[in-house]
Amino acid sequence: MNFCSDNVAGIAPEIMAAIEKANQGAMPSYGADAITARVEQRLSEIFEREVAAFPVVTGTSANALALSTLTPPYGAIYCHPEAHIMVDECGAPELYTGGAKLVPIAGAGGKLSAGAVADALDNARAGDVHHVQPAAISLTQASECGTAYTATEVAAIGEIARHHKVKLHMDGARFANAVAHLNVSPAQMTWQAGVDVLSFGATKNGALAAEVVVFFDKALAETFGFRRKRAGHLISKMRFVSAQLDAYFENDLWLTLARHANAMAQRLVGGLKPIPGVQLLHPVEANEIFIRLPLEIVAGLRKAGFDFYDWPGAAPGTIRLVTSFATAAKDVEAFIQTANKLVKVAS
Amino acid sequence: MNFCSDNVAGIAPEIMAAIEKANQGAMPSYGADAITARVEQRLSEIFEREVAAFPVVTGTSANALALSTLTPPYGAIYCHPEAHIMVDECGAPELYTGGAKLVPIAGAGGKLSAGAVADALDNARAGDVHHVQPAAISLTQASECGTAYTATEVAAIGEIARHHKVKLHMDGARFANAVAHLNVSPAQMTWQAGVDVLSFGATKNGALAAEVVVFFDKALAETFGFRRKRAGHLISKMRFVSAQLDAYFENDLWLTLARHANAMAQRLVGGLKPIPGVQLLHPVEANEIFIRLPLEIVAGLRKAGFDFYDWPGAAPGTIRLVTSFATAAKDVEAFIQTANKLVKVAS
Amino acid sequence: MNFCSDNVAGIAPEIMAAIEKANQGAMPSYGADAITARVEQRLSEIFEREVAAFPVVTGTSANALALSTLTPPYGAIYCHPEAHIMVDECGAPELYTGGAKLVPIAGAGGKLSAGAVADALDNARAGDVHHVQPAAISLTQASECGTAYTATEVAAIGEIARHHKVKLHMDGARFANAVAHLNVSPAQMTWQAGVDVLSFGATKNGALAAEVVVFFDKALAETFGFRRKRAGHLISKMRFVSAQLDAYFENDLWLTLARHANAMAQRLVGGLKPIPGVQLLHPVEANEIFIRLPLEIVAGLRKAGFDFYDWPGAAPGTIRLVTSFATAAKDVEAFIQTANKLVKVAS
Amino acid sequence: MNFCSDNVAGIAPEIMAAIEKANQGAMPSYGADAITARVEQRLSEIFEREVAAFPVVTGTSANALALSTLTPPYGAIYCHPEAHIMVDECGAPELYTGGAKLVPIAGAGGKLSAGAVADALDNARAGDVHHVQPAAISLTQASECGTAYTATEVAAIGEIARHHKVKLHMDGARFANAVAHLNVSPAQMTWQAGVDVLSFGATKNGALAAEVVVFFDKALAETFGFRRKRAGHLISKMRFVSAQLDAYFENDLWLTLARHANAMAQRLVGGLKPIPGVQLLHPVEANEIFIRLPLEIVAGLRKAGFDFYDWPGAAPGTIRLVTSFATAAKDVEAFIQTANKLVKVAS
Repeated sequence: MNFCSDNVAGIAPEIMAAIEKANQGAMPSYGADAITARVEQRLSEIFEREVAAFPVVTGTSANALALSTLTPPYGAIYCHPEAHIMVDECGAPELYTGGAKLVPIAGAGGKLSAGAVADALDNARAGDVHHVQPAAISLTQASECGTAYTATEVAAIGEIARHHKVKLHMDGARFANAVAHLNVSPAQMTWQAGVDVLSFGATKNGALAAEVVVFFDKALAETFGFRRKRAGHLISKMRFVSAQLDAYFENDLWLTLARHANAMAQRLVGGLKPIPGVQLLHPVEANEIFIRLPLEIVAGLRKAGFDFYDWPGAAPGTIRLVTSFATAAKDVEAFIQTANKLVKVAS
Repeated sequence: MNFCSDNVAGIAPEIMAAIEKANQGAMPSYGADAITARVEQRLSEIFEREVAAFPVVTGTSANALALSTLTPPYGAIYCHPEAHIMVDECGAPELYTGGAKLVPIAGAGGKLSAGAVADALDNARAGDVHHVQPAAISLTQASECGTAYTATEVAAIGEIARHHKVKLHMDGARFANAVAHLNVSPAQMTWQAGVDVLSFGATKNGALAAEVVVFFDKALAETFGFRRKRAGHLISKMRFVSAQLDAYFENDLWLTLARHANAMAQRLVGGLKPIPGVQLLHPVEANEIFIRLPLEIVAGLRKAGFDFYDWPGAAPGTIRLVTSFATAAKDVEAFIQTANKLVKVAS
Repeated sequence: MNFCSDNVAGIAPEIMAAIEKANQGAMPSYGADAITARVEQRLSEIFEREVAAFPVVTGTSANALALSTLTPPYGAIYCHPEAHIMVDECGAPELYTGGAKLVPIAGAGGKLSAGAVADALDNARAGDVHHVQPAAISLTQASECGTAYTATEVAAIGEIARHHKVKLHMDGARFANAVAHLNVSPAQMTWQAGVDVLSFGATKNGALAAEVVVFFDKALAETFGFRRKRAGHLISKMRFVSAQLDAYFENDLWLTLARHANAMAQRLVGGLKPIPGVQLLHPVEANEIFIRLPLEIVAGLRKAGFDFYDWPGAAPGTIRLVTSFATAAKDVEAFIQTANKLVKVAS
Repeated sequence: MNFCSDNVAGIAPEIMAAIEKANQGAMPSYGADAITARVEQRLSEIFEREVAAFPVVTGTSANALALSTLTPPYGAIYCHPEAHIMVDECGAPELYTGGAKLVPIAGAGGKLSAGAVADALDNARAGDVHHVQPAAISLTQASECGTAYTATEVAAIGEIARHHKVKLHMDGARFANAVAHLNVSPAQMTWQAGVDVLSFGATKNGALAAEVVVFFDKALAETFGFRRKRAGHLISKMRFVSAQLDAYFENDLWLTLARHANAMAQRLVGGLKPIPGVQLLHPVEANEIFIRLPLEIVAGLRKAGFDFYDWPGAAPGTIRLVTSFATAAKDVEAFIQTANKLVKVAS
């Protein structure tokens, strides 16, 4: 019973079926196939606007390649200190941007506040050759803390971006979970709030390996094809990546899968909160729970066969629990029951 | 009936079955799974030596990341002017090496000759700060012209590499086809001939998207894990890439598939050579045929529904025909018969 | 009367004379001349150890090129948030390291504390491919706040560097001012305290354009020559850069010039501190004063013809005053008298 | 008596005087001084057009930074196989462009022909993501072989550049020698012939260390200031670099110095050509002579105290002789007399 990450899960059946179905005879390579074209069309419908869409196979490449279209090599990209692009990509944004600088802006709950972003940009010394130049802001939706920006919060940052003539990127590795939680339209959450480009994730939510970079401003996409190829991220048998996305977007499967993951997280946190001494670090607004439990309960859960991560840099007993499209309700119930039993033993 | 490339084919049944089989419950991500470990073990057996192996999903990333471990940013990498790394990767080696220079060395049939390599290295001004410094040689096996280096030819270049203290890389996007053609052991073709690192391809030969970088000198591999992650090429659900490779290496599937592709190429060229006016550009030693046909035959074949590429930079009527694991014998026969019928019509 | 920066000053007479003297007939280019060799010899004497020394013409290139020898492109360099390499070089370290990340560690008075450095390195997740890897620490001596690390403070950080197997770089754009202030030997301040490489500045202290990168561990210097040339920082008529350094080191001119600058700063701050309402931001341990004065005094000084910078990000009335080898005692006195007169007018 | 290179010479007296004159009191740093402004003004006059001009201190940085404004990181820059940017800059263009590819186009006498350039661009597969994209052409004027492009030859290439929408760069390390030889206006030789940006050299022609990048299309210059700073090439005491250029352009000193160097080369080659067995490799159209002499004469000249380089990759006895602004007529005469005496001895 694995609550380590949503990437320990396998492939959703609908997506696996789509891969199999795509395996029929010869098809043009490198994205010239009909399935890839259909994915772009589906995204234009989902976002209620014509978009340019580029499938890739990892979230790191989606983010770093997207950012590389937004900044010169001497640019600054503003993000949260705990952002995936800052902490967990081993310097990928620096590689793909040719050395741009990621500038941290602190914020509660893994989110940037419009005020802090405005301060940072006001003090960025734009135009002065001694300093890296403001180029982009990157938000993570849902955030690294399992929280979600409201559309209004995004729009406030989008406003600042426009004012300072910088671009707005959204790392949507868990975009589905955020949209499912907030119950807003994808358009409201993105370009209507000022987002220029979105890394739209599918891998964590049921795909084998599929993400798609969505440009709402098609002019920004002009160099993307070259950048993707040059990075070795243009998949030759693209139809099999696109087939995953095609199934992901068909009949709102992406939202169905995310709603399940979110519901499992809500059930899980609901069952844990009543435990005496429990401390919830952040509101649960997607499929991640950051929670502090008594140490003996943490140990007991592990002994009972539950897998999860201790959270680095936090107080002892702080763990992260991640649910996914594949999380079984019975495993969640078992987790809650085991935790509660351990409480009684301890008390 | 598509002879455009081996990447227009789909997935071999054994490989698709392995992907499905891997889709069972939770499994550690980022390559910490048992399937990935088994792939490395299989490669150590295939090459009769302990190797370090890193799965990736494209040949371009395999090549460029491998080269990035062999050269400083001010290094020179020697290769054929038509090498994939030189011509077809939109500058990926330059990106991943931080700006190293690819230096072309001309050679017949898409192959480097030991003499020309020795000349280039003798004149490379090693140690002089004004010039990029010799760092690596890269061979393509099978070559871009569909020819294969013999083990002796590789060893002669390996000798020069050792003498000049540069590393030897082999781009083996079609390694299986070369090994199948030459009937040598993988060990003889690689480290026993001086190869330090191999990009071992599977995608063109039946995988969905799977290549593996094989280091024979494990010390060279030390930085690879970081470089792969930083490039966004560490797949989170790695088990599904490794499962492809696992099936590819089981029971020598890789050779079985390549032998079929090679046999189809031999049958095809055998049926075309007798046509009057035909000119074969290179010996067929893998699964690619570069051939010049009368223009009306080329046009007639296209009209009859056969797909293939005109070869850029060559005389009119020069086309490339590529066979694959999936090429049907009946399609090859149809191609030959159609071509021969067109001859009669023309004459 | 300009107190804006030490780089608004001209060239010290001894250094100008050396340039003229070097302008005699033909001399080998690119550093193969006798003057360049003598500079390296002088530095070996000054540091009581055989060093490898490379003249360049800017502090930014000295720092960024030095750092590029200490880190892989996926490395982390720890420094103060206000460090020149972090704030004032428009991303030069990122360019020359191929995308390494500068990680800020806060500290009072522009200095890193050993404790904070140890914490950062303990939490750096060395060996984990998802994160940039600890590679180097960079100190600024004298710091951006005009303070100086004691040899003991440097040694404590050097100890941590050794323990974590990372390298220690010192940005010594104002190294002369720090050494003059502390009255320690150059050896004590550097390699004896664990410093691996020093950017030794001369430009701010009387040269036309001359800095020298000094490697105490000569093995680290092996790639420097190539990196300098590749950056366009190998000066063809090197003798004229080396001549500046040669004069700078002859008869301890570097210390004589720095002592003058430091003495002027002490006189200046001594004359300003008694003014009511004055607030000194940092102790004055080199040639820079960060001080807050009543706004009308600041305005009055400017009106009287004194040039200096308002300090960005600080409270209104906070200014920076920089003295140099060329600062005239009479100008310092004039500044003090003017300020004091303005006090009386105001009161 | 040194004929190795024009960079073994010192500083022209007028330029040295200008440096001394600039050494008066405080002056704004980083190019905000009046001398730097005057240099740009002078260049606008020389080129009969408003230009944007950026002083730097090396030819390599001038070239590589200029090119970095003309190409994306996945771009191709076309140049002669012997171009300085291709052979002698240790990969600087690759560094500053973020990995663009230099594509060699062979041509007689160190010059590109319009026909060969057109062929290369016609076959560049613009728009195809698999290939680096045509971005710029770079000419060297005077060329690495001591020849000069006529304005007509440049214009023919400029026409092709415009047609293919790529930019045209001129490496003018010896621009003065070419202009002096051809007796055309600087405007005719550059922007009127389609040149977008010029690396205008002074160092080889009498400066201490000064080159200036001249943009005829000011829009291309927008990012240059950031790129120069980020490369560590923004000199803090800029007035001393600009002072060199100011003197260089005053009263056409640049042409006066170049005419002397060219005249010395003409006298030298005129005195050597009559020697039996002599072979002149290229017409002498600047200040470089590539000549093959009998081996015993080469040896005898060296024995008599003349310094020069054997030319790598050429037949034995092939040497390069370079004259400069500082070459003394008596040294040229001595060279000729010695060579002729050696002939008599030999015969």
